[in-house]
Amino acid sequence: MITRDYQLTLKDVANEKPEYLETIFSLANGHFGVRANDPISGNPITGTLINGFYEVAPIVYGEGAVGYAKQSQTILNLPDLRHLTIMTVSGHPFTTSQRTAAKLDLQTGMLTEQYQVTSQQGETIQLTVKSVMGQNQRNYWGVSYTLMADNYHGPLVISKSIAVPAEAESIASADPRKTRMAGIPDCQTDFPSPDIQRYQIKTRHSGQAVTMYLGMTEPQGGTLLKYRVDLSDDQPHTLSYQAYVGNVSANNTIDPIIPTMDHAFKTLEVDSQSFWEKIWAQSEVTVDGHPELDLAIHYNLFQLNQSAGRDGRTAIPAKGLSGSGYEGHYFWDTEMYMLPYFTATNPQMARELLLYRYQILPQAKQRARQLGVEHGALFAWRTINGEEASAFFPAGTAQYHIDADIAYAVGKYYETTGDLDFIEQCGFEIILETAKFWADFGTWHQVGDQTRFEFLTVTGPDEYTALVNNNYYTNRMAKHNFELVGYLARKLAERDPNRLAAYGVKPADLEHYQQLADHVYLPYSNDQQINAQDDSFLSKPRWPSDRMTPDHLPLLLHYHPLTIYRYQIAKQADTLLADYLFPADLAMDQLKREYRYYEGVTTHDSSLSRSIFSILAARMGEPEKAYRYFMDTARMDLVDLQKNTADGLHLANLGGSWLALIAGFSGFYLKDGVPFISNHLPKELNQLTYRMRVGESLVEVALSAQTTKVQLLDGPMLQLNVNGQLQTLDHDTAVAVTND
Amino acid sequence: MITRDYQLTLKDVANEKPEYLETIFSLANGHFGVRANDPISGNPITGTLINGFYEVAPIVYGEGAVGYAKQSQTILNLPDLRHLTIMTVSGHPFTTSQRTAAKLDLQTGMLTEQYQVTSQQGETIQLTVKSVMGQNQRNYWGVSYTLMADNYHGPLVISKSIAVPAEAESIASADPRKTRMAGIPDCQTDFPSPDIQRYQIKTRHSGQAVTMYLGMTEPQGGTLLKYRVDLSDDQPHTLSYQAYVGNVSANNTIDPIIPTMDHAFKTLEVDSQSFWEKIWAQSEVTVDGHPELDLAIHYNLFQLNQSAGRDGRTAIPAKGLSGSGYEGHYFWDTEMYMLPYFTATNPQMARELLLYRYQILPQAKQRARQLGVEHGALFAWRTINGEEASAFFPAGTAQYHIDADIAYAVGKYYETTGDLDFIEQCGFEIILETAKFWADFGTWHQVGDQTRFEFLTVTGPDEYTALVNNNYYTNRMAKHNFELVGYLARKLAERDPNRLAAYGVKPADLEHYQQLADHVYLPYSNDQQINAQDDSFLSKPRWPSDRMTPDHLPLLLHYHPLTIYRYQIAKQADTLLADYLFPADLAMDQLKREYRYYEGVTTHDSSLSRSIFSILAARMGEPEKAYRYFMDTARMDLVDLQKNTADGLHLANLGGSWLALIAGFSGFYLKDGVPFISNHLPKELNQLTYRMRVGESLVEVALSAQTTKVQLLDGPMLQLNVNGQLQTLDHDTAVAVTND
Repeated sequence: MITRDYQLTLKDVANEKPEYLETIFSLANGHFGVRANDPISGNPITGTLINGFYEVAPIVYGEGAVGYAKQSQTILNLPDLRHLTIMTVSGHPFTTSQRTAAKLDLQTGMLTEQYQVTSQQGETIQLTVKSVMGQNQRNYWGVSYTLMADNYHGPLVISKSIAVPAEAESIASADPRKTRMAGIPDCQTDFPSPDIQRYQIKTRHSGQAVTMYLGMTEPQGGTLLKYRVDLSDDQPHTLSYQAYVGNVSANNTIDPIIPTMDHAFKTLEVDSQSFWEKIWAQSEVTVDGHPELDLAIHYNLFQLNQSAGRDGRTAIPAKGLSGSGYEGHYFWDTEMYMLPYFTATNPQMARELLLYRYQILPQAKQRARQLGVEHGALFAWRTINGEEASAFFPAGTAQYHIDADIAYAVGKYYETTGDLDFIEQCGFEIILETAKFWADFGTWHQVGDQTRFEFLTVTGPDEYTALVNNNYYTNRMAKHNFELVGYLARKLAERDPNRLAAYGVKPADLEHYQQLADHVYLPYSNDQQINAQDDSFLSKPRWPSDRMTPDHLPLLLHYHPLTIYRYQIAKQADTLLADYLFPADLAMDQLKREYRYYEGVTTHDSSLSRSIFSILAARMGEPEKAYRYFMDTARMDLVDLQKNTADGLHLANLGGSWLALIAGFSGFYLKDGVPFISNHLPKELNQLTYRMRVGESLVEVALSAQTTKVQLLDGPMLQLNVNGQLQTLDHDTAVAVTND
Repeated sequence: MITRDYQLTLKDVANEKPEYLETIFSLANGHFGVRANDPISGNPITGTLINGFYEVAPIVYGEGAVGYAKQSQTILNLPDLRHLTIMTVSGHPFTTSQRTAAKLDLQTGMLTEQYQVTSQQGETIQLTVKSVMGQNQRNYWGVSYTLMADNYHGPLVISKSIAVPAEAESIASADPRKTRMAGIPDCQTDFPSPDIQRYQIKTRHSGQAVTMYLGMTEPQGGTLLKYRVDLSDDQPHTLSYQAYVGNVSANNTIDPIIPTMDHAFKTLEVDSQSFWEKIWAQSEVTVDGHPELDLAIHYNLFQLNQSAGRDGRTAIPAKGLSGSGYEGHYFWDTEMYMLPYFTATNPQMARELLLYRYQILPQAKQRARQLGVEHGALFAWRTINGEEASAFFPAGTAQYHIDADIAYAVGKYYETTGDLDFIEQCGFEIILETAKFWADFGTWHQVGDQTRFEFLTVTGPDEYTALVNNNYYTNRMAKHNFELVGYLARKLAERDPNRLAAYGVKPADLEHYQQLADHVYLPYSNDQQINAQDDSFLSKPRWPSDRMTPDHLPLLLHYHPLTIYRYQIAKQADTLLADYLFPADLAMDQLKREYRYYEGVTTHDSSLSRSIFSILAARMGEPEKAYRYFMDTARMDLVDLQKNTADGLHLANLGGSWLALIAGFSGFYLKDGVPFISNHLPKELNQLTYRMRVGESLVEVALSAQTTKVQLLDGPMLQLNVNGQLQTLDHDTAVAVTND
């Protein structure tokens, strides 16, 4: 009997840092997020974040230059919706509170917290806060407050409103992972009816607007600003409210339609539960025999789903909607670390995320021109609105690989879903424009009898090595980008032989891209017999071992970039990331050499690192190592491994933990559309079960030490390769392969 | 008969841009400078600059990191001393004026200008402004205004005061060559006596203070704020004033001593004239048969002398004291482009400039630690107070070569002057600390059987190529820095065998530095048979020729740094700069190959470039080319070649024009203390005559197409090599060598 753990409770919440808990217990629905602020004492970091709602400001440079990103884009910290004011009838407020318990139900999306609330006179009451997001009705959030007497018995006046935040100063931080403080938007509030507050927010410079509404739902007819509760009777008294967070509009226009504000709390609870039922039905992952881990992976997938934009105009901020770290920007890790989960389990969501990239293609074309490249598109390294917002190009714009990362994700989406409509409408244009960029950006270089197509002065995923020539990962991904043009062009031509001409693509162009792909230079070290991270990485000195102790890590917070750059030290998987993506590229003995080598020069200061090291260790038949790396990724935020969970969750790492299970322990990858599965389950886990879609089919895979079972739950029969054996899967029989 | 041109007059000053003229006709004395602002209409850019008087402000980064320069240092634009208020007795002011003539006498330092001044009623008078710096009495500046009737005849009220400038906003510019606006300091003014204004300036953050005084000197007993002149008589009426600009004090303390304020204008004129007589006597350069060029070189040396700090606590700002471009910072070009002139002609001034570096050695040691280097010192790339003020490290702190540049200058100073006292007191410590830095910063690298000592992730002089490995110039200079330790250690030990121990230097250390020097890697291209600018420069693609047209230059104002960095394109002489400094390093055929090669990939977007190309062309026996490059350097500011002379003069280029004459046309260099001279005079010049010191001797060299004459003017006899022949020079006979 498999037990699944979906109930997140943390020990000793009373002694945890509030900011950490606010992140961990944050709720979201892809459109907006609500941090779990203390409803009584609040928090200077206000609690609501709307995906894609940002303010701009001129970026001030110590020393500027042509083509630098001109404006910052910063997600706005919007007013806390959870705040409640409790007063005695004589006007004494209850001002302090202590969270005594918290539980997040990952099957229903319900967050339940207990607080002891105290007045300045030392009077105490018990407060239970239940809150839940509308998941299908994505503009809504509901909260219910249940009050009970503790040492205070008597009448209370409850009021609730959205408060205008104080002005905040813009700050500069030496930690690039933090957000900057954006300017405060213009806020106006009124009360269209006694129980509904309207709160209009217009940014001053980015031209966006949004309206929030707050209403009381139960008891019916309650007044928002004054409601009297009598705690004399030792009975629980419950008041419910809902908030409506409007869609982001451009041109500072306020949506004139007042939304329905009579959803009972129960309505939102049902909405949320039905959403999560569907999510788990299509993407359930269960780790049997390890409840802590089982819970962690459920938590990670829960937060991934909460954070992902679902409207084709937003993506997944680096910190999700759980915090404003990294300014709410979208980076390459959406495509490389998070999208694989959605592509494999929820193609509709994956499609919406890729649609976002298609929407910002015009800005990407513009950006390529700003970088002196006459053709194609260069996606911004970090952005919300599509324009580059990175203010440090050596670890920003120079990470050109984002172009090929997005192209890769489009390719995988097609390979997994077979959705040629999307390719025809959006995907092919993305791949074509990025390929055009690489073609124009790269340069031919003749070395002896070798004709190389090279990419110079780039930064790969490893941000501890900047502005180098021929970063292996970048080059390998660009090569793949070129190949994708031909691959998808053939698919499009099969459907409609005239289709390619509409993109302006001629047969000679396809030959040209193939020729470029064939000549992309992939640096290799004959000495080490491994792929070289770039032209110079392997010949740099090793980072001094006495500077690798915990008080020196992460290096970026202790050393000047120049100091870090001149050593052979990597922040994260770089060449190994390419090895993971392209397993057919190298034989096992080379993979093992590369792994040993790069493991020795990697700090894992990035949260994107350990999951890849876990996957490759699993593939290499080193399950203990794979397990160790995985355990650090699986619970990174739950244990605050990087000490900055307060700024928000590490979304890419959440995705990475899923990758480690599926691509690592289960050895999953697609090859020409055929799923390959290899059982690399570490001994610490009794059984790993997961679901995913392949084409139209929903499959469940169950790995144990003895067998690898695959079952078709829905959709047409399909072929797959399990532990090296090609199997046909139909509805009648599960496939069970005994492990070696 | 040789004619010398010392009278700078520009044609058609009425139609020149005022900002350009204000720079060109600026006066200074190493301590402070006065831009030639229109005395009536003034200029928003106020006109007084004090060397080393700066304000600090936090540097705001788009994205900060550990170890970045924290504070800007910005020279302050202080109130204009030249302003004069002219009114009719009924209170109508004369508000507009037109400069009709200007003449700067480079033999006396006297600036004489003519203005036509007009009231709002259209009444005009003629104004002659004569101004002069105290050069020995360096706190003083004097001005005399001579008024004459034009169409206005009658009484006038003249008043003069130092005005408090308006508040200015801090600005960010995309042009890194401009200054930033510093915060306005606290200013207080009072009148200790009716004819003296005191003006106290305290910076708000840098803790500096200075006091300026303004007083009327003639007519005696005049009132500063109100003096009545009657122009009814068509006679000239002259009023003279003087300003005293105090020394910069730390800790915001104001010097309580009121200076003598009764220097007649004539006194300062005499002071200035005696100073310039001495300067020309020891450093005269005459180009016969080319008055325009003769004047230009006089002008350049005049401005060099005006700009150089003479107090051991200041150096030469990149724009001198003629403008606030580059924020009044001192860079490497002081040592590499300007100091050679002083070392060769005015050792006392050279010593003061090197003393400045010794003063900031503690900050340089601190900076090395911030860069993760445990020993030695790293001088700031740009600074006033010794702390790093560069806000873009790829073209700032990464230009580590400044350490070796300063060491080189110390070595040359010793080699030229034999001043072992300075070496013992200051110089050796500079060379030792910079050598320690290189030793710790560099890394060993075994390539086949070659053991290399390398310097990684550095930027050389060429700022169009950043963060590369083994920049040839940097490595060659570091090698020289190591060698200097041994060379000067031997000199010190000869004087006192125990002296080295006092520096903590053991014999084994000297061996170690020699070993490092022997193994410093100097990149060489076997393909091209030239020294390679760095490990990757030669294998990058050439900059597209269609982007080299004038509308694309300078590249830094048209292209993102990433675009520039990935091409094989240089802003200025880089490897060739090393070739110029170390002529014995390579044979003529290699020099020619290198020259051809690098000339093809250099834009000369830096004002430091053409002089070096001129020198090497001369050495290579290509006088026409040498002449062409020289002519662009010689008159760069006078013709506003770079279109930004308004921001201030290009001081390094002024020094470079002297280098081009002396090291180029005259082929001068020192080898083991022996001067070498080779006649490379281009046919456009009849004769080049110059003076310089070698040790205690003052020598005059005269080059013509026929002969090279050398004459000992003062000091002991010496040996020198003229056109390949070793000659002994004594007082009785000039040496005249017929050219080949």
